[in-house]
Parts: sequence; structure tokens; C-alpha cells
Amino acid sequence: MARTVADFGLTCGTLPTGTHNAITDVPGVRVGHCTLRDGDINTGVTAILPHGGNLFRGKVMAASHVINGFGKTVGLTQVQELGTIETPVLLTNTLSVGTCATALIRDAIRQNPDIGRTTGTVNPVVGECNDGALNDIQALAISEEHALAALADAREGAVEQGNVGAGTGMSCFGFKGGIGSASRKIALGEGHNLGVLVLSNFGRPGDLVLPDGRRPDPRRQAEAERGSIMIVLATDVPLEHRQLKRVARRTGAGIARLGSFWGNGSGDIAIAFSTGNPVDHDETRDLVPLVALNEARIDILFRAAAEATQEAVLNSMLSAEAFTGRAGAHRASLADWLRDQAERR
Amino acid sequence: MARTVADFGLTCGTLPTGTHNAITDVPGVRVGHCTLRDGDINTGVTAILPHGGNLFRGKVMAASHVINGFGKTVGLTQVQELGTIETPVLLTNTLSVGTCATALIRDAIRQNPDIGRTTGTVNPVVGECNDGALNDIQALAISEEHALAALADAREGAVEQGNVGAGTGMSCFGFKGGIGSASRKIALGEGHNLGVLVLSNFGRPGDLVLPDGRRPDPRRQAEAERGSIMIVLATDVPLEHRQLKRVARRTGAGIARLGSFWGNGSGDIAIAFSTGNPVDHDETRDLVPLVALNEARIDILFRAAAEATQEAVLNSMLSAEAFTGRAGAHRASLADWLRDQAERR
Amino acid sequence: MARTVADFGLTCGTLPTGTHNAITDVPGVRVGHCTLRDGDINTGVTAILPHGGNLFRGKVMAASHVINGFGKTVGLTQVQELGTIETPVLLTNTLSVGTCATALIRDAIRQNPDIGRTTGTVNPVVGECNDGALNDIQALAISEEHALAALADAREGAVEQGNVGAGTGMSCFGFKGGIGSASRKIALGEGHNLGVLVLSNFGRPGDLVLPDGRRPDPRRQAEAERGSIMIVLATDVPLEHRQLKRVARRTGAGIARLGSFWGNGSGDIAIAFSTGNPVDHDETRDLVPLVALNEARIDILFRAAAEATQEAVLNSMLSAEAFTGRAGAHRASLADWLRDQAERR
Amino acid sequence: MARTVADFGLTCGTLPTGTHNAITDVPGVRVGHCTLRDGDINTGVTAILPHGGNLFRGKVMAASHVINGFGKTVGLTQVQELGTIETPVLLTNTLSVGTCATALIRDAIRQNPDIGRTTGTVNPVVGECNDGALNDIQALAISEEHALAALADAREGAVEQGNVGAGTGMSCFGFKGGIGSASRKIALGEGHNLGVLVLSNFGRPGDLVLPDGRRPDPRRQAEAERGSIMIVLATDVPLEHRQLKRVARRTGAGIARLGSFWGNGSGDIAIAFSTGNPVDHDETRDLVPLVALNEARIDILFRAAAEATQEAVLNSMLSAEAFTGRAGAHRASLADWLRDQAERR
Repeated sequence: MARTVADFGLTCGTLPTGTHNAITDVPGVRVGHCTLRDGDINTGVTAILPHGGNLFRGKVMAASHVINGFGKTVGLTQVQELGTIETPVLLTNTLSVGTCATALIRDAIRQNPDIGRTTGTVNPVVGECNDGALNDIQALAISEEHALAALADAREGAVEQGNVGAGTGMSCFGFKGGIGSASRKIALGEGHNLGVLVLSNFGRPGDLVLPDGRRPDPRRQAEAERGSIMIVLATDVPLEHRQLKRVARRTGAGIARLGSFWGNGSGDIAIAFSTGNPVDHDETRDLVPLVALNEARIDILFRAAAEATQEAVLNSMLSAEAFTGRAGAHRASLADWLRDQAERR
Repeated sequence: MARTVADFGLTCGTLPTGTHNAITDVPGVRVGHCTLRDGDINTGVTAILPHGGNLFRGKVMAASHVINGFGKTVGLTQVQELGTIETPVLLTNTLSVGTCATALIRDAIRQNPDIGRTTGTVNPVVGECNDGALNDIQALAISEEHALAALADAREGAVEQGNVGAGTGMSCFGFKGGIGSASRKIALGEGHNLGVLVLSNFGRPGDLVLPDGRRPDPRRQAEAERGSIMIVLATDVPLEHRQLKRVARRTGAGIARLGSFWGNGSGDIAIAFSTGNPVDHDETRDLVPLVALNEARIDILFRAAAEATQEAVLNSMLSAEAFTGRAGAHRASLADWLRDQAERR
Repeated sequence: MARTVADFGLTCGTLPTGTHNAITDVPGVRVGHCTLRDGDINTGVTAILPHGGNLFRGKVMAASHVINGFGKTVGLTQVQELGTIETPVLLTNTLSVGTCATALIRDAIRQNPDIGRTTGTVNPVVGECNDGALNDIQALAISEEHALAALADAREGAVEQGNVGAGTGMSCFGFKGGIGSASRKIALGEGHNLGVLVLSNFGRPGDLVLPDGRRPDPRRQAEAERGSIMIVLATDVPLEHRQLKRVARRTGAGIARLGSFWGNGSGDIAIAFSTGNPVDHDETRDLVPLVALNEARIDILFRAAAEATQEAVLNSMLSAEAFTGRAGAHRASLADWLRDQAERR
Repeated sequence: MARTVADFGLTCGTLPTGTHNAITDVPGVRVGHCTLRDGDINTGVTAILPHGGNLFRGKVMAASHVINGFGKTVGLTQVQELGTIETPVLLTNTLSVGTCATALIRDAIRQNPDIGRTTGTVNPVVGECNDGALNDIQALAISEEHALAALADAREGAVEQGNVGAGTGMSCFGFKGGIGSASRKIALGEGHNLGVLVLSNFGRPGDLVLPDGRRPDPRRQAEAERGSIMIVLATDVPLEHRQLKRVARRTGAGIARLGSFWGNGSGDIAIAFSTGNPVDHDETRDLVPLVALNEARIDILFRAAAEATQEAVLNSMLSAEAFTGRAGAHRASLADWLRDQAERR
């Protein structure tokens, strides 16, 4: 179940939210999870699919932005060079990126037997955060089957949030973090959407600032960040790669509004894609028509990216129940803190 | 006269401020202004000197970070490649960067007659914002003499802020902007400082968020940003260039905390230098000792950079009086708004 | 008069040259020069105009690539952020970039009285090399009038090369350098062109390698580079900004083929534009159609960029007569060396 | 067995080679291979160890440079942000990077049981090229054991080159490619070395240019590149991260001298490290002394990087025997072509 800031009387910015207030408000986008909870194992995989078809054949335009690069995300070099994503995006724990990348490779070969034969290879995209505080990360518990299960679970519509998929063992500002999502309607052309999904695992206890200025206290001692946040941003507004990269950069503003200064030990990485300019792997024309945004209109996307990122992080924390993980480590729920505050008034 | 957030009961973050709460708390750093106010001419030049000696001979380590590149700052290419600044940094209006660059060149040749003869050329660094709303920017009123006057005015100690120097005709979130500064004490080694000076000219009316969550209303219609912010960051903590660039990046978090999403039309650019590792133009050794920061300690600088940038912008607005400029265009003072609010209680 | 590699039986690569074997083979592109030769003053300005109309109103898509950033080029920050050029590109000596930037600003205001009033400011683009060895660069001899004269001289068709315009006082691999150009026909769509113009002022004596493997000896002692090369690349192939930047990067391969390793003291900078996707300053549509290249076809542009850059440098040297400049400093002509070699056989 | 350009009367540049003319001339550096040759399986793993100790505890300063980003290398984001390498560097085929990354993670945990528990996670670095033309790459034949075998094989001294380790199934300019190495002595301080190891798998047939200007013909039809080159550069010259990145960039010049224009389909990526400034994972001091290079001396490293890269590629081809791989695909040996040419004279 997903709880959002609106359930607690909060708002992030001024733009209207989409139907599901989730990344899936961008038509075609799907999200799936595979969750592992067994004793000290509290981890998982979350899959974001730009569309439901063969992504290697029908790529989407993409860009990435590294807010702080203490992270192990796989696949960004090619995303930046070629401006496309050609597999689903998987999120998982830090030490399982290799396994998830291999799973995406095998899945792409299964769908496209010409990979590495008569056409090129495939570029898997896998993001990660370190859930070692609540999960026995050394166990490398994620298998290729778990990755495939997350892919198989992918669906349109409402997105399950909180302690689910890759978010199972994550922490945020000393509270329980995890998967969160939010979206904004974009009043351009005939109407579009921009959606964000985050895997939240960053922020020092005590640094969190709510949109109304309150500073929730997780009653945990502040410690150096060894967290991270992965941000996946989707839109159906057609954009040039350069424009998409500009939009991706604004996710950093959303995080900063929460009180973060993008700590040293945090891998804060945004991956953005637009479904508005499909890229055919088997294109035969020399020159290909695209649609780009009038640059003078881009502020609405910047604002939406900042607002939706800020809200997606809060939604991840509000959707997450309090959690006791590896070796008895406990994380309180921000939702409980807010309810507690409301009762005290 | 400089007014700061503390004068209005506000605080930006948790770190202690330096003696002057200004960029000049970094030992050796000097600031000077030349202000032009005459009818529709409301502009000027502000000079930041990393030290009081010959900067071409004794360079300082430097880095820059482009938050949003809709700007015309001069000199960044070489700063990034060689990691040094070898002239004072001048700030002025957008259309006067050429003139200020030429002034810096002539001044460097005067001090170093071997430039372009037996040694290389010199890389002037000039930042800018567009003060066209309050200043007749088409008049190109800044001359080389004005640039030299700002250099001659440079001094240590308290920094004049608000409607002064390059800040004379600037606007910020619909209020009057201008020059602002702030600093933070850094508890590393035997004690250090980090200081920021901004030329604030960005932000849409209505987007400003104060540290206590209030949203001041400048009673101006929102319009697309055509502003910018220049951020000059100084520290005496010895850093490697890579570390300094990481610190410079955190100024963007400070701006985002104010409610900005780094608008399309805004040139948001940070220039950072450290006085902790002087670079001798005439170095004769093959290998040169440096001091770098233990990377595990860098979060204190990140936090300081975000806090001091956030505060420097607010200080620029609080130090600026209400102003009527070109063609009767008016900007209210944030200080007046805050006093007004206090009286209403 | 321009002499090219073909006049000396040399070829750079395999693609066919355009009609004029110059940047002006891209329809609409114009080149003009203003040359100063008077005693120790040996310098000038070269102007490249993407088209003959109002460039601020009708921008061209652009990208830049810094091969080595020991340079003072003005305007690249905005070119990279917005992906457009909105003024002519001027080339001149290092210490005159400020003056040329101011001239471009005044010229843009003259044509567009709304600049800095009801629309934004303008981003002048000026590149430079250090001609201090042959020119009294400290004299700052270039005035705004000289910049305007180069603009007024701009024309389509054959390009004057060698010791002309900004190339007047330049040196290359110990020989006389200067302005050079070359082009390649691009067999895409209905036929296109890619052209390069260089201001050559780089390379250590003895490092030059000709396409046939010979190593011309300028009989000068090797010394540290304090040179630079500016590369302006034009094409009418419609490209996305990301693609244009990839093409611009390949100019570095052209330089490396000449024996350069992109020396520390050399500012090696490429500025590329495509006339294939015009950008209207006053665009009113939200979404704008573009044309991009099928990425699988981009190798032909990469090859053309490398070949045309390599050839443009050689053409600059072959077109340049032997020259005696400031304080009797002399540079031999590569053309003379090649003729000498031919006679000796 | 390694054959070098000198065995064929060729030279790449002017600097003297090190003792082994290999990356292992940098004291402490080790190289190991694991080779798979079985029917259609022709692939392997090559390991480069910056030193023989615990790399997570004793990191080395590092930088990377992406010449062309059509590649799937793992680990670069963190290398760029933190400027260190903390595992061996593994090279393998494109589809096996995930498995090799997982192997490095497990090996690091084995040596450092605090990873993911009381200290952060570990950043594995794995490079790749696509050997699909000669190897059944879809088989994903590389296991974690193969990665560990390459690590176990690592040794100082002469480097086995050609059809070995990751180089087993690689092609270069239509000839057989593979592993190659070269080094240059650096006359700085008390004497240093710079070494390069490449995994060569790039270049269109017919584009190769030898240092003497000859163009070897592999008698293969030209086809679009789907190759790549991985370049690992090591030096014991102490450098700042910024300097190391500048040096890494010059590997691109070495490749361009071979006739390449850094084709679209090629992932051309350099990873550089210096052993001159060790980085202690458990550093307790706030400020840490470093040694940097006098920037005015850096040209010797630039030259060495270009020369050693150019030579390492040629050495890889000269050391490789003619090879028949998957489905009877054949690659001639450049060594045979050169011997053939010598006999014809």
C-alpha cells in the first residue's frame, strides 16, 4: 500500500499530481517487485519498464545525471553516449548489481537471439543502494531468478511502495526508507505526465525537513552516510537528449529541499527516460524525425522533476512500516512520527 | 551595511558562522566594489581577491561547477583544466564581461611584463548576471576604469552587501537582490573557514522559502527567469582539485533549499578556490608536496557550502534596500517584508 | 590564396572533398577576415557566420568539445547548456577575446533592440590562440572596429587561408600556421557537407607527421607548447545536440594524426554547429519537430570530422608564406619545405 | 610470448621503453590471465592488480576517461567521484562483466569482512570488449572461478600477450587482436615509469596505419565497428586526480595515430591509476600529505601515454597468432603480414 504526503496534509510544490501519483502515470510504464524477507535477509529487486514491448528493439531516449557518484550503478556510460535505454531498469542492493545485470543480459538474448551474433551486445541498466544496515548484504541473496520475478511482476497502474522490492531493507534520514513514487501533470501540447520512482536510502538522522518546515527526529544517533538514492524519472513529453539530461539534473533540487546536502558516502544517481521519441534498433532511414520541447517551456518540467522527487522520497518513507532487520537493527516509520505529532496537538 | 539572517531570527543550518560571517573570514581574501548609480544606470563591479599578492605568480587552486549554464561567465574552461585561478574574480552585468576581462588582462600584464612574451598568457575570470530589469544594460556603462576601481577597493574584514558593486541592479525572487556573503567555521586540523559570496539575481516571485518555512510574497507577477546567480566560494582547507569541485557542487543544494529549481533562464555558476595549496607559477621542482583532505571528513565542507550559500543569498536580500531603477521598475526589500510581518504579530 | 594538401600530392583519408574544400561548402556559411600587419603588430580577426541572416533570431544548433582546456574561449558554457549559437563565431588572439565579445554584443543589440530589455541577453562566442611569438600581443591592438570589419568581410565561396585574419601571427609545429579549411561530402539523404576551419597555432617542432609518414623539420629548437588550436566545424546534416557533440569530439583524432598529443600548454577547442535544425528565438509552439541522424550512420561524420580537421591544419600551413614577425622572429613555410624536398629527389 | 614493434623494426615515438616494455614496469603492478579455448568458446579474463596487497585497505588514486562510450564497463562512476580504485581491474567479454563484478565483490569481502557491515561497500571495476565474432558470447562461459583464476595468476615481470586471457577472441582492424602492453621511462624525480595494457578489439579493416605510414590489408571486407578497446594505464609518478585524468585522456591520441576515428560502435575507455599517492581506507588524520606533479612537466606523461597506447595496440596484434574461432571465423595475424612484406622485398 502506498501512502502519500497528501494523506498527512502535506504538499510538495504547486503542480497537480497524475492519476496514480506514480511513475506509471506516464503511459506504458510498468513497475514490478520481488521482495526477500527471511531472517537477516531483507532485500529485493524492483523493475521499471519504459514500455511493455521488446525494449532492445524499441529503445527509449534516456539520460543520466550523477548527483554524487559514490555508487555502483551499471550502464550509465552507454546511456550518456547513445542517449537510449534498451533494457528494463533494475534496482537492487549494492552487491547484487552484477547478478541483476547478468539476468537482464540473458533476458535480452532470449527475446533477441541476434544479440552478440549479427547485431551488437546489450547494455543492462542496474541501480543500487546499500541496505547492509538491515539486510545481510554479504549473503548476496539475490539470484537471477529474483530479477526475472521482478520483471514478471511489472504492471501498469498503482505502484506498491515502502518496504517492498529493492526498498525492503533501506533507511532514509534515520527512518525506514524504501520505494516511493510521485507524478506531476504537464500542461504542454495535449497534456503529458512526468513521474518519479525512488529507492530512498540516504540522509543523516536529524537533517530531514518537511515541506511545512518541521524536522522529524528519528531518535537515532547521527552517523556518516553510507546510503544512496536511486531516482528513475519518466515522461512522455518528447525531448532531445540534452533536454532530458537537464530535467534529470533537477532531481537533485528535490533532494536538497529535503535537507540533504548530497553526502559524501551517498550514491545519488538519476536515470531519466522519455517515451516521446521511440528509437528503432532496426531503423533503416538515414534521417529520422524527432520532436523536441520548445526550450522556453522547459521550466515546467524542471519544477515537476524537483517536486516529484521531493514527494517520492517522502512517499517512500510514509509508505514504509517500522522495521526490524538484521541483528535487531530497528528503523521507525515517518508515518508513525507524523501520527504521533498529530495526536499530541 | 550588511544585515544577516540572524538579525531577523533566522538560521541556515547548524554550523557556526565565522568572525565576519563573510567570505573574508578565509584569511587573505579581499572584496571590493565599484557602484554606478545615475538615472537609468544602476550597475557595478565586485572584485574578489584570493589574496593580496600577485595572483599570476602565486595562483590558488580552483574549480568551477555549472549548476545551470544559461550564463556568460568567462574563464571556466582553463579553471577546470588546470585547476587554478590566476587573476582576481570580477562580477558584473552580463554585457560587461568583455570589458572586465580586458581590464584584468591589462592589470596582469602591468604586474607581470613577461605575460605573452616569455611566459604564457593570462586567464581572466569574470562572472555576470543580467541586471537589465533595473539597469540600462544596453548602455554598456562599465569601463575598464570601473573594474580597476573595484580591484583598488578590495579589503579584508567586513563585506559591504546589498545594493552595491555588481549587485546594484539585481533582483531575487521578485525582491531586491545583490551582493551577499556568509561563512562557516570548519573544525578540521587547527581550524579553518569556508566563505561564500553571491551575486543574487534569480528565482521566480513566490518560490522563495525561508528557513522557517514561510513564503514571502513580493507582490509581483511571476515571470520566466532571466536572472542568474554567481557563487564564489573560498576556503583555507587544503583540498585536491577533485575535492574542491565536489564542494563547489554543494552550492546548488543551498540554492535549492531556497525554493529554486535552477530555472532554464538562469546562469547558476559556482567558482571555488582554496588558499590551502598555493601554486607557484615559477615552480622549479618536478614534484610538489600538497595537502589534501581525508575524504571521510568532507561532509563538513559539503554542509558548510550548502548552508553558507543559502544564507549568503538571504543576506544579499536582507542587506538590500527597496530600489527603483530603470524606467521606474521597483523591487521591494525582503527586510521590509520581514519587519512588516513582525509588526503584524 | 589557399593551397591544399592535394597541391602537394598528399591526401587525408578517403572521403571526397566538397566544391571549395572549405567550411563554406556547408550552404549558407560565410567567412571573413580582418588582418593587421604593421611592424610588431601581426594579428587579426576571423569571423565564421553560420548563415547570412539575424543569428540571434535564427539560432543554429551547436556543441563544443574541449580537447585540452588551456584556453580562454568565451561562450562555451551556454553553448553546452542550450545547444545553440546565436552570434557569429569570432577568432582572434588570446588577449583580445574581451574586445571581440563586446563587439559581438553591440552588433547583436543593433540588430535586436529587445536584447536585455524585453528578451534575454546574448551569448557571444569568441575563440583564440596566443600569437605572442610573432605579434606584440601586449599591445591589445584589436579594436571593436576590427571585429566588425571581419564580420563585414564575411562571404560564401572560397576561403582565404594562411597568414590572414586571426591566423596572421600563428605558428604550427615550428612552421608558420594560420587559417586553414577543408571539407568532405557526406553521402546521406540527398547529399550533405561537413566543413572545418582551423586557427592553427599548436604542435612542437619535430612532432609533425605528414599523411605519407614524413616528418618535416622546421629547423627550430623544440620548446614547450604555448600555442592552441581553434576548430570550427559546420555541417548541414541535421543532428541532435548529443550527436553534434560526438562529431565535434572527433576533431581531436584529426589533430592526433598530425603527431600531436594535445600538449599541456595548448588550448585545443572545437565548436561545432549544424544548420540542419534551425532554432527560432521567437518559437511559439510547445513542441517542435526536429530531424536527427540515424545513429548507425554517424561513422561517416566521425570519419569526415577527423579527415577534414587533419587536412585543414595542413592546408593552413601550406597556405601560409614564410613569415618574420615581432622582434625578428621567423617561421618557415611548410610549402617551401615540401618544394625543397621535391627538388632534392 | 610477447612480440613488440621493435621486433619488426618499428617504433612508436621517441621515449625509451621500460625494462619489460609492459605495464608491470610500474613497480608493484601485476597481470594475470585465465584463458578459455574450447570449440566455439574463445574468451577469458585478464586481471591487472595495482599492487600485491589488500587493495580495499590500500587504494590507489585513479581516474577514467571515456573516449567513446558505446561500452559496458563497470565501476567508473565511483572512480571519477572518489578518485580511487579499491579492487583489481578485470577485463573480459561484454556479457560477462556482471559475473566478474560479483567475483571481485566476493573476493573483497573475503579479505575484508567489515565490508557492508561496519564499513561501506566495495566498487568493482570491470572492463569489456565484444568478442562475439570469434567466441560464442551468448554462452556466458565465464564463471566467478575463471575470474579468481586470473587474479591468482597475477604476477610481476613480463606480460603474456596476444591470444590470452580476455584477449583470446578479440579482433583489431580486421586482424587478430588481444592483450598488448608497452611502457615508457619517465625522466622525472628519481626516475619513474608509465605503462599501458590494452584489450584491443576495435578498428575497421583497412584503416590501420603503421608508424612508418604503411597500411596493412587484412583482406577482410570492411564492416561497421562493434568492437571496443579497453586501456589500463599505470604510473608511479605521483599525481593529483585531475592530472591523472588529463594523462588518461591522451590514450585517445595513441589510438587516433593508428588510424582510428573512435567509431560509433566502439567502447573506447581508459582507466588510469597512480601508485604514487597511496590512499589508506582507514586514514585517521584530517589532512593528508600528497605529492603532485609540477604541471609544467606533464607533457612527458602526455607523450608517454600516447606512445605507449599506440604501441600496446600494435604489440597486441603482433603477439597474436592467426586464429580461427566460432563458426570458422578467421583472423589473420599482423605479424604474418609484416613477415610476408619483408620477404617480398
